[in-house]
Amino acid sequence: MSSSATVEIINFGDELLVGIRANAHLEYLGAELARFGLPVQRARVICDSPDEIRAAFSEAMTRSDLVIMTGGLGPTADDLTRETIAEVLGAELIHDADVEAAIKEYFRVIDRPMAAHHRRQCFVLKGGEVLPNERGTAPGLYYQTKGKTLVLLPGPTQELRPMFERELVPRLRRDGFLRDAASFVQVRTSGCGESSIEACLQDIIAAEPDLQVAFCAHYGIVDVRLSSREGHLDAADLERISRAVAEECGDHFFCFGKGSLAEVVHYELRKMGRTLAVAESCTGGMLSDAFTNISGASKTFIGGIVCYSNEVKVSQVDVPESILMQHGAVSPECAIAMAAGVAEQLGSHYGLSVTGFAGPEGGDKKNPVGTMHLGYHSPVGVWSKTVRYTGGRLDVKARAVHAALDWMRRKLLKYKAEEQGACGGLN
Amino acid sequence: MSSSATVEIINFGDELLVGIRANAHLEYLGAELARFGLPVQRARVICDSPDEIRAAFSEAMTRSDLVIMTGGLGPTADDLTRETIAEVLGAELIHDADVEAAIKEYFRVIDRPMAAHHRRQCFVLKGGEVLPNERGTAPGLYYQTKGKTLVLLPGPTQELRPMFERELVPRLRRDGFLRDAASFVQVRTSGCGESSIEACLQDIIAAEPDLQVAFCAHYGIVDVRLSSREGHLDAADLERISRAVAEECGDHFFCFGKGSLAEVVHYELRKMGRTLAVAESCTGGMLSDAFTNISGASKTFIGGIVCYSNEVKVSQVDVPESILMQHGAVSPECAIAMAAGVAEQLGSHYGLSVTGFAGPEGGDKKNPVGTMHLGYHSPVGVWSKTVRYTGGRLDVKARAVHAALDWMRRKLLKYKAEEQGACGGLN
Repeated sequence: MSSSATVEIINFGDELLVGIRANAHLEYLGAELARFGLPVQRARVICDSPDEIRAAFSEAMTRSDLVIMTGGLGPTADDLTRETIAEVLGAELIHDADVEAAIKEYFRVIDRPMAAHHRRQCFVLKGGEVLPNERGTAPGLYYQTKGKTLVLLPGPTQELRPMFERELVPRLRRDGFLRDAASFVQVRTSGCGESSIEACLQDIIAAEPDLQVAFCAHYGIVDVRLSSREGHLDAADLERISRAVAEECGDHFFCFGKGSLAEVVHYELRKMGRTLAVAESCTGGMLSDAFTNISGASKTFIGGIVCYSNEVKVSQVDVPESILMQHGAVSPECAIAMAAGVAEQLGSHYGLSVTGFAGPEGGDKKNPVGTMHLGYHSPVGVWSKTVRYTGGRLDVKARAVHAALDWMRRKLLKYKAEEQGACGGLN
Repeated sequence: MSSSATVEIINFGDELLVGIRANAHLEYLGAELARFGLPVQRARVICDSPDEIRAAFSEAMTRSDLVIMTGGLGPTADDLTRETIAEVLGAELIHDADVEAAIKEYFRVIDRPMAAHHRRQCFVLKGGEVLPNERGTAPGLYYQTKGKTLVLLPGPTQELRPMFERELVPRLRRDGFLRDAASFVQVRTSGCGESSIEACLQDIIAAEPDLQVAFCAHYGIVDVRLSSREGHLDAADLERISRAVAEECGDHFFCFGKGSLAEVVHYELRKMGRTLAVAESCTGGMLSDAFTNISGASKTFIGGIVCYSNEVKVSQVDVPESILMQHGAVSPECAIAMAAGVAEQLGSHYGLSVTGFAGPEGGDKKNPVGTMHLGYHSPVGVWSKTVRYTGGRLDVKARAVHAALDWMRRKLLKYKAEEQGACGGLN
């Protein structure tokens, strides 16, 4: 199987079609496969009906080399994948004693009896390889027929991911689907619009006829994705081009790959041996959360205060009552007091704060809904910045968090030398 | 057009296929259309290539009545939707003076010149209705041909959502696609496994031959989705059945629809006129964030402290150093001290806390990675609870947040009468 195999993902689940949940499996599988040089070309979500499963599966097996299906392997009556696939393939479902033993062992460990309906899960496609499920009851399957490869994975995230890593990746590698280098490179930028970024990259793009460039904008971040249209650019070429792109983007560039703005701030602080605390009003914990998603965050991030009420702003981060009275809680003055106050209270070198109206209620003439004031305290001074966004409450929160992180990132880069002096240096 | 129209959504964007972003558009559009009685049957994600656009679009127009496509309408060279669709339909792209005027006005307001590449966005399919874009430059389109309806929406979330609400919904209603009642009902439960929930609903399911039931489990929550297989059950029937399902689920039931555990806790507190503060270590702001995603959260949620370091646990939430020394920061004793301390410090009636090891690093023999201790302080006492999860760092955080919210919800229901007495009641 060549590394230019076409890959299609089919996710089952009504809940993905009627807006109950986002499709995290596609995000995960897409990222993992791309990392191994196998980008997904097509994906679809279908409801749990045998007709839809039959149609989607037949079509996918016709036009794609590798078809990965997720979900529908559970013990409940709406889990119909196994039976429907067997019917389409004309393959037999046979009882697998090892699978039954594994399911029994699973229930023994969690100290519950194995219910009768789990017996359905012991049947697998004859001629396929069973992918053991170490975190649940539904086994996965790897099945090859007429030059096509079919993979069935269970729906729950905590079962799918370990099975993908431990069971599926080795088989895909064995059968020649995976390469070691990524087939695309991503350059992340923040604080500049999509078409401006494209405009400044015109010369680079024009010089590389086989270069495919895609832009993706979200919450103030613009990602530039570089890949080879016809495969004439190898990993080293893409690396070279991505460096040129990053240079052209200047201060807007913040990392290659999937790293977050919080990670960039964290690594900068870590290099300097400095710590950060945050104070949040309207973003309500989302800024703290961005840091604590980083494994090892405790080396730079010591904590945060969500001062949602005015009383908590006064009692926990020492915002002077006079500021609240004169300027209000949604003001540059309050943002600065919060940033300086939280750094002082928690004993960190840096403080970062957000206060504003996330909507849909609140806001006034001076500060309409969507207005956010950011505050920044560093060893060499304090600053404020005001931003304004449209959109729903969660969108405004997410944009404000990105804005605060990007602002701190730029300040850190600009004042780094000065601040190391002010803190007494590292050596 | 009957209300049983088949609906298909096509999302463009390489970033959705290689794991850079989750498909939030599908989640949003699916939820909105289902709310109006028009559940989506099929969805697919394709990359920005003319061949893929052509294939997916032709197929969708053959088998679905309404096809909604998102993305690919931007000004950059990788935005190919408009041109490819026109080619497939054999339709003409014509310059629209109103669209050009709107784009010029957009740039006038944000005080930037209109760049030459935005001129492409002024071309629309001849015979279609333009959907004005009040938040950006790319207009949407509503186009009917041979009994089929095609909708083009722009990719950025902040442009797509207002256009959907203000421009698309009225047209879909005019053309008979939308009903006023939802075609499915969701019953949300927490704290009980998927197959146990199914088992306890057997009698209800058996009594309704036309009832379609789907289960969806994520992070400790199991949603039960009820719909009518053949359309014999109307909204009143689904409502009646959903009430019976909720009753059968007992304490595990927490709400109908899309509400969150945080919302249930918020509404309970609001009814009692009580307030809450939270202290978080490993969940790092995610618990606070769950509350502040609720508009009007400030009526019950006064704030939170992210005490990531031991120093902050001592200085900000008054965890006694003796507890840290004897039991450690990851212990039931510390969780209780955090819950009581944050309520005391911030002046709330209730305190809720989480401390644990989210992984992948950390953990010890007594508290392996994934161990979380929850603490709860109420007017009538303090409690702790220990939970343990497998999975990645973000999964463990999300499960711990759900566990803490569900635990507080159950405690509130159990002790409500008693606590109202202890606080002096509301009247």
